[in-house]
Amino acid sequence: MNIFEQIESDVRTYSRSFPVVFKRAQGAQLMTEDGREFVDFLAGAGTLNYGHNHPVLKKALLSYIEQDGLTHGLDMYSCAKREFLQTFHDLILTPRGFSDYRVQFTGPTGTNAVEAALKLARKVTGRSEIISFTNGFHGVSGGALACTGNQHHRGGMGASLADVTRMPFDGYLGDGVDTTEYLDKTLSDPSSGIDHPAAVIVETIQGEGGLNAASYAWLRNLQAVCRKHDMLLIVDDIQSGCGRSGHFFSFEEAGIQPDIITLSKSLSGYGLPFAVTIFRESLDQWSPGEHNGTFRGNNHAFITAAAAFRHFWSDDTFAKAVRRKAEKLRSGLQALIQRHGARDLILKGRGLMSGIECPNGELAERVVRLAFSKGLVIETSGAHGQVVKCLVPLVITDEQIEFGLKVLDQAFNQALSELSQQAS
Amino acid sequence: MNIFEQIESDVRTYSRSFPVVFKRAQGAQLMTEDGREFVDFLAGAGTLNYGHNHPVLKKALLSYIEQDGLTHGLDMYSCAKREFLQTFHDLILTPRGFSDYRVQFTGPTGTNAVEAALKLARKVTGRSEIISFTNGFHGVSGGALACTGNQHHRGGMGASLADVTRMPFDGYLGDGVDTTEYLDKTLSDPSSGIDHPAAVIVETIQGEGGLNAASYAWLRNLQAVCRKHDMLLIVDDIQSGCGRSGHFFSFEEAGIQPDIITLSKSLSGYGLPFAVTIFRESLDQWSPGEHNGTFRGNNHAFITAAAAFRHFWSDDTFAKAVRRKAEKLRSGLQALIQRHGARDLILKGRGLMSGIECPNGELAERVVRLAFSKGLVIETSGAHGQVVKCLVPLVITDEQIEFGLKVLDQAFNQALSELSQQAS
Amino acid sequence: MNIFEQIESDVRTYSRSFPVVFKRAQGAQLMTEDGREFVDFLAGAGTLNYGHNHPVLKKALLSYIEQDGLTHGLDMYSCAKREFLQTFHDLILTPRGFSDYRVQFTGPTGTNAVEAALKLARKVTGRSEIISFTNGFHGVSGGALACTGNQHHRGGMGASLADVTRMPFDGYLGDGVDTTEYLDKTLSDPSSGIDHPAAVIVETIQGEGGLNAASYAWLRNLQAVCRKHDMLLIVDDIQSGCGRSGHFFSFEEAGIQPDIITLSKSLSGYGLPFAVTIFRESLDQWSPGEHNGTFRGNNHAFITAAAAFRHFWSDDTFAKAVRRKAEKLRSGLQALIQRHGARDLILKGRGLMSGIECPNGELAERVVRLAFSKGLVIETSGAHGQVVKCLVPLVITDEQIEFGLKVLDQAFNQALSELSQQAS
Amino acid sequence: MNIFEQIESDVRTYSRSFPVVFKRAQGAQLMTEDGREFVDFLAGAGTLNYGHNHPVLKKALLSYIEQDGLTHGLDMYSCAKREFLQTFHDLILTPRGFSDYRVQFTGPTGTNAVEAALKLARKVTGRSEIISFTNGFHGVSGGALACTGNQHHRGGMGASLADVTRMPFDGYLGDGVDTTEYLDKTLSDPSSGIDHPAAVIVETIQGEGGLNAASYAWLRNLQAVCRKHDMLLIVDDIQSGCGRSGHFFSFEEAGIQPDIITLSKSLSGYGLPFAVTIFRESLDQWSPGEHNGTFRGNNHAFITAAAAFRHFWSDDTFAKAVRRKAEKLRSGLQALIQRHGARDLILKGRGLMSGIECPNGELAERVVRLAFSKGLVIETSGAHGQVVKCLVPLVITDEQIEFGLKVLDQAFNQALSELSQQAS
Repeated sequence: MNIFEQIESDVRTYSRSFPVVFKRAQGAQLMTEDGREFVDFLAGAGTLNYGHNHPVLKKALLSYIEQDGLTHGLDMYSCAKREFLQTFHDLILTPRGFSDYRVQFTGPTGTNAVEAALKLARKVTGRSEIISFTNGFHGVSGGALACTGNQHHRGGMGASLADVTRMPFDGYLGDGVDTTEYLDKTLSDPSSGIDHPAAVIVETIQGEGGLNAASYAWLRNLQAVCRKHDMLLIVDDIQSGCGRSGHFFSFEEAGIQPDIITLSKSLSGYGLPFAVTIFRESLDQWSPGEHNGTFRGNNHAFITAAAAFRHFWSDDTFAKAVRRKAEKLRSGLQALIQRHGARDLILKGRGLMSGIECPNGELAERVVRLAFSKGLVIETSGAHGQVVKCLVPLVITDEQIEFGLKVLDQAFNQALSELSQQAS
Repeated sequence: MNIFEQIESDVRTYSRSFPVVFKRAQGAQLMTEDGREFVDFLAGAGTLNYGHNHPVLKKALLSYIEQDGLTHGLDMYSCAKREFLQTFHDLILTPRGFSDYRVQFTGPTGTNAVEAALKLARKVTGRSEIISFTNGFHGVSGGALACTGNQHHRGGMGASLADVTRMPFDGYLGDGVDTTEYLDKTLSDPSSGIDHPAAVIVETIQGEGGLNAASYAWLRNLQAVCRKHDMLLIVDDIQSGCGRSGHFFSFEEAGIQPDIITLSKSLSGYGLPFAVTIFRESLDQWSPGEHNGTFRGNNHAFITAAAAFRHFWSDDTFAKAVRRKAEKLRSGLQALIQRHGARDLILKGRGLMSGIECPNGELAERVVRLAFSKGLVIETSGAHGQVVKCLVPLVITDEQIEFGLKVLDQAFNQALSELSQQAS
Repeated sequence: MNIFEQIESDVRTYSRSFPVVFKRAQGAQLMTEDGREFVDFLAGAGTLNYGHNHPVLKKALLSYIEQDGLTHGLDMYSCAKREFLQTFHDLILTPRGFSDYRVQFTGPTGTNAVEAALKLARKVTGRSEIISFTNGFHGVSGGALACTGNQHHRGGMGASLADVTRMPFDGYLGDGVDTTEYLDKTLSDPSSGIDHPAAVIVETIQGEGGLNAASYAWLRNLQAVCRKHDMLLIVDDIQSGCGRSGHFFSFEEAGIQPDIITLSKSLSGYGLPFAVTIFRESLDQWSPGEHNGTFRGNNHAFITAAAAFRHFWSDDTFAKAVRRKAEKLRSGLQALIQRHGARDLILKGRGLMSGIECPNGELAERVVRLAFSKGLVIETSGAHGQVVKCLVPLVITDEQIEFGLKVLDQAFNQALSELSQQAS
Repeated sequence: MNIFEQIESDVRTYSRSFPVVFKRAQGAQLMTEDGREFVDFLAGAGTLNYGHNHPVLKKALLSYIEQDGLTHGLDMYSCAKREFLQTFHDLILTPRGFSDYRVQFTGPTGTNAVEAALKLARKVTGRSEIISFTNGFHGVSGGALACTGNQHHRGGMGASLADVTRMPFDGYLGDGVDTTEYLDKTLSDPSSGIDHPAAVIVETIQGEGGLNAASYAWLRNLQAVCRKHDMLLIVDDIQSGCGRSGHFFSFEEAGIQPDIITLSKSLSGYGLPFAVTIFRESLDQWSPGEHNGTFRGNNHAFITAAAAFRHFWSDDTFAKAVRRKAEKLRSGLQALIQRHGARDLILKGRGLMSGIECPNGELAERVVRLAFSKGLVIETSGAHGQVVKCLVPLVITDEQIEFGLKVLDQAFNQALSELSQQAS
C-alpha cells in the first residue's frame, strides 16, 4: 500500500478518477512521474485559467523568492501587496466601473471570501437572512455551506445551516417561469414566511451545480428585485470570474453592478491560494481586525496576480481570444451532440465554462473515465454528476481543444455503445 | 492617498500598528522598502516558526518551481504530496504515536481545518453540539466562528453560531476550581440543559485569548471527561503546534492523545497557506469528496513542509534548542516583570508562546507601539488586548531575544512613566 | 381611563375593532353590558362553531360542576376524559377511518397541539426540517411560529425560526403552476439545498392567511409527494376542522389521510381551551411524559366536547345543514360581489369559512368597521388584511345570515362610495 | 382494553402512577369512580393552590355560566375581564409595588406566557440570546423548551433550541461559589463567547428541577448582574407563584423587582387554563395583535380568579396561614429525615413547595408508589426523579398534612427496608 492510500483520508476524490501521480505541468498539459502526458480539461476546477506554471508568472515569482521578498505578512503592507492593489485597480476595477470598490483580503480560498461577504452583508444591513439558489455552490465552511445546495456536503451540519432561504435558479421552474417574480412576490408578501433578507448570493454560471448559465435578463431582474427590496446583491464569481466567461467578470455583458463580489481560484493566476472580497465603498463598515485570517496576505500570490493582470488584461486581446476559443469549443460540443443524440444531450454553460448534460450520471461518469484513458483530464458536475464539464485553461491551443473534442467524441461513442449493450 | 488607504478595506489591522511597507525578510528580521530593519516578535502570528524565507526551504521551493513542478492539483496525487505525506508520517506522526492517524487536506488556512474537524465530529457521532471554551479562538468562518469566543469577530452572525456550548477554560473560575468538573457535572445531569456533545475543541495554549496555558492535569482531566461521556477531543494546535511549545505538538508533555488535531500556520514552514486535519483511522468516515476545497493541495507548501520536517525534526536537536530559548525568553520576561511591577504584571503562556499580561489594554498597547518605534515588531492579544505577546520565530538568535527583551524593558519603562504622568 | 386601557397590554387587538364591553352571548348573538346586540360573524375566530353557550353543552357543564366533578387533573384518568375519548372514537374517528389513531392531550390551545405534532414528527423521523406554506398560520409559540408565515408575529425571534422551509401554497405561483411539482423537484434534487424534511404541515383552508382554499387535487398531490419522499403529512385543522368545511375534518372530501392532525378551537364546543393532536398508532413513539403541560386535561372541556359530539355528530343531519348554509352564505356573497365590483372583489374560502377578498386592506377594514356600526361583529384576514372573513357559527339561523349579508351589502356600498369620493 | 389504553397516546404519565379513574374532588381530597378517597399532595403540580373546586369560586362560576356570561371572546373586552383586571390590580399588583405593570393575556398555559415573555424581551432589546439555568423548567413549546433543561423533553428539537445560554443555578458549582459571579464574568469578558443577552429567565424555586430554592442573596445578586449588563430579568413564577411560597409572588422576601413575570397554574384558582405575562409599562412595546392566541381570554377563568383574589388576598390572613402550614409541613419532613437517614435525605424547597431529596430516583419512586397505595397522591421531581415533592393545596387542613406525613413516614420505612433487603 502506498503512502497515499495508507494515510490520506478517504475524503480524497480526484485521485480516484485520475489514479496517477502528477509531477510536472505546463500550460494545458499535465505530466505524470512515469512520463505520461494529459491534456487538462479541468484546469484545477477553474483555478488555472492561464494554464499551469505560466512562464511570465513563473519568472516573476522566482525572482521575488530569490530576493527574499516578504512571503508571509498577515495583512501588513508590503511592496508585493501594493503591486497587486495598483494593477488590480488600474487594469481590472477601473475599466469596468468599480474604481471605488474596496478590496478585502480574506482567507486564501473561495469559501473564506464568501464567509466575509455574508458576514459583511449581515453586519451592514443588520439582517441575517440570505437568499441563495438551487444548485448553488459557495464552499464548505459553515457560513458558505449554508448557501450551498449540495446535500453531500451539507450532511449533519445542523443549525449552522440556518438563516438561508433557498430560491429556484433561472430555469428551475421550467421555461415559462421567471423565478425572480416568485422571489419578488414572497418579499412583497408580509405573510410569505420569508424574512427580509440581508442579501442574495448568486453564481451567474453555476459550476458545481451543472453549468447552469443564468440569462442576462434574469440577472438584471434579480438585480432589480434586490434594489426594490433593499437587499445586497453578492455575485460569487470565484469559478466563473477571471476571464472564464470571455470577460474578466462573468456579469459584464449582463450589465449589472453587484454590491459585493467574491474572487478566488484563478485570481493568483498561478494556482496559489488567494481570495478577495470586493464591495462598494459605502459597505466598508468593518472595524479594524473584525474579520481576519492568518493567510490573508499571500505575497507570492500578489506577485503572480499582478504579473497576470499586466500580461493578460492590459488590453482586450486576451478576452477576445477567449471568446473565440469558447465559440470553437462550443461548436465542437454542439456537433458532438448532433452526432450522438440531439434528443438526450444538452449543451450547457457559457464561454469556456461549457459542457454536455447527459440524461444521467452513469453516462457522464463513463465518458470522463474513458476520456482519461485516452489522455484527457476532465470531470463531471451537477446534482447527479450528469454534466461532462469542460473547464479548459483559457490559454489552451486550438490543437488541444481539437484533441479534447476528438477524445470526447470517441468516449461518448464508446460509452453509449457499452450502455446500450448493457441494456439489451 | 496611497493605494492601500485608497482601496484596501478598513478591516486591515496590522498595517495600522506597523505603518511601513515591508519588502524583504530573513529569519527573525524584517526589512522595509526604505531600508529600516525590525526584529520580528510576531512571526506571522505563529506562522513563521522557522523564520522568514529559511534558506533550506527556499532552495527546495525554487528548485521545484524551476522544474515546473505541479503547483495546483486539487487533491490529485503528486510527487510533492507524496513527499509531504511520507516525511510527515515518518518524522512527525510515527515517533509521537500517531502512525495510524489519517491526514485530510483541507482548505489552506486554519479555519478550514477547524471546519473539517467539526463537521467530521458531527458526522461520526451523529450529534451536533460542540463544547468550546471561554477565550478560545478557532477562526472566523461560520462553523469555526461559532466556537470562537471573541465578540468582535462574532458580531451579527445570528443562527450560524448555534450548536456550540461555551465552558470555562482552565482557571476561568479561579484557582481552586477545576472547570472540567463543571463540564462533567453538566454532562452527567440530564436536566442541565446541555445536550450530549459531539466533541470538545480546545487550544492547549490560547493564543488570541491571551496566552492562557492549560495545565497538563487539566488537559488530562478534560480527556478523561471526553472518554467518560463518549465525546471526541479535538485539539486545535494551529498556533501552538509545529514546535512552538518546545515539542511538535503542544500536548505531548500532557500525555494526552486527541482524537482529532488541526494544524496550519507554521505547517508549510515558509509562510505558505496550508492546513491539515488529522484523526484516528476509525473516524475516517468521509465519503469521497464529501468535504472539499479548491486549494486543498498546495504543492509549494508540500515541498517546503517536507524540507522543514527533514531539516528540523529528524532528531530532537531543534526541539531542545526551542526549549532552551523559551527558558531564556521567559526568564527575561520574568526579570522585566520584577523590575516593573510584580504586583500588576503576570507572565503568561508556555514555551516560545509567552508574554506579559498587563492590568489593562492601554498599557499593553502603548508598550507595543513604543517597541515598534525602537525596532521591534510585536503585538498584543487577549480579550482586552492586555497581553504583550512574544511569538518569536523558533530560529531566533540569542542576540535577537536579548534585543527584544531590552526594547520591551525600555518600552514598559516609558509606557508606565507616561501613564503615571497622565494619571497625576 | 378605564382599567382595560390602564393596565392591559397594547398587544390587545379585537377590543380596538369592537370598543364595547360584552356581557352575555347566546348562539350567534352577542350582548354588551349596555344592552346592545350584535350578530356574530367572527365566532371566536372559529372557536364557536356551535355558537355561544349552547344550551345542551351548558346543561352538561353545569351539572358536572355542581357535582364537584374533577376540574383539573393533569393527565390523570377521569370519568370526563373517558367520556370524551369514547365519544370522539365512536362518533368522530371511527366513521372517518381513523379508529386506530392515537389521541394526545396537549396544552389547551392550538399552538400547543402544533408544537406536539412537530416534535413528534421530528422525533419519529430523526429529521428536523419541516415544510410549511406561504401564508400559513400555525400559532405563535417558538416551534409553531417558525411555521407561521406572518412577519408581524415573527419579528425578532432569531434562530428559533430555523428548521423550516417555506413552499408556495396552492395557487401562489399562478393558475397554471402546481406547486407540489416544485416541492417534488426540490426533494428529488440532491443539490436543491432543501434537506430531507421530517414533515409537511398544511392548512387545507388558510384562515389567517386570507381564506385560501387548497384544491382537492392539490391536497392529493401533496399527500403523494409526502408518500414518495417519506415525509409525514400534518394537517393543521384547528380553524377549518370541527365541521366548518361542511365535514368534521376539512380534508374529508379530498380523500386524503394525514399522518398527524391537530385540533383545537371548536373542539370543546363551548369556547373552552382544549386541543389534541392525533396520529397513526405507529407514530405513537412518545415515552411517558416526554411532552407535557399543566392543562393537558381540561375536564370541563371533556364534558362539553363529548356533549357536542353526541348532539351534533351522531348522524349527518348537522353536517348537511352546514353545507346548505354554506351554499346560502356563499351565494349571498357572490351576489354582493356582482353588485359591487365583479372585477375587483373575489369570493374566497370554502364552506362556512368564506369571505370576500378586496383589492386592498383599506376597503376591507372600512367594511368591517361599518358593519360593526350596523350590528355585525366581523373581521378581516390575509397578509394585508384584505379579506372580509365570514366565520359564522355553524348553528347560525337563516335570518342571521340574511341580516349579515344585508349589513355587508350596505357596508360595501358605503365604503366604496367613501373611497371613491376620497379618491376624487 | 379500556378506551384510555386503546387510544390515548403513550405520552400519558400521571395515569401510570395513579391507575384509577378520578370522578370528584373537593379541597385536598380526590375521589375515584369506585369510591376510594385520596389526599392530594400533588395539587395539579401547583395548579390547585386553593384546592379542588373551592365552594366560593364554584358559586361564582356557576352563576356566571347560568347567566350565559360570555365564555369565549378572544381578547375582546368583557365584564369578566374587567373584574379580573380590577381585582388583580387592586389586590395583587398595587400592594406589592407593581401598580403600573402591564398585563398581557397570553395563550392559557404556562408555556404560552413564557413564549410571550421571551419574545417581548427579544423585541424590546433587539437581542436574541437568553440566559436560563441548569435544571430550569419553562415549558415544552419551542421557545420555552429552549430554556428548559430537561433532555427528556428536549430530544430532537434541533435548531429551535438555539439562542439560549445555560448558566449554573444557585448552588450548582458547590457551596462556596456564587454562580452569578461567573455570569458577571462571562458578560464582562468580550471573549467569553457569550453574546450580550436580552434577558435572564429564572425560577426562584425550581419545581420540576428538584425543589432547588435560590437564596435571596443570590436572587439579589442576579438582579444586580442584570441591571449592570442591561438585561431584563424574567421571573417564571408559574409554579412558585400565587401564594405557594407564603407570599403571592415567590420573590417578595428577596426584595427584587423583576422586569417581566409569568403566571399561570393557580392563577384561575379553579384549575382552569389561564396564564398572563406582566411587565413594566416601558416594556409594553407590542403592536396590536403582534402576539396572539385563540384562548387568551378565558372568561370562566377571569371569574374564578377574581373570586379567588377577593377571598384569599384581600388581607394577609391567608398568606400567614400558608406560612404556618409550611412550617408544619417542613418540620414534619425534617423529623422524618432524622428518623430515616439524616445523612442521605435532604430537605428541599421553600414554603409549601417542599420535599425530600433521596440519594437516587429508585427510592423516591418507591416511596411515592407506596404512598399512593396508602391513600396519598404525590409525585417526584428532579433530574433523576430523586425528590419526593409535596405540593399540597394551600388550603390543606392540619389533619391532612399530618395524614400525609404519616403515610410518607410509613412509605420511607417500607421502601428503605425493601431496598436494603434487595441489596443484601
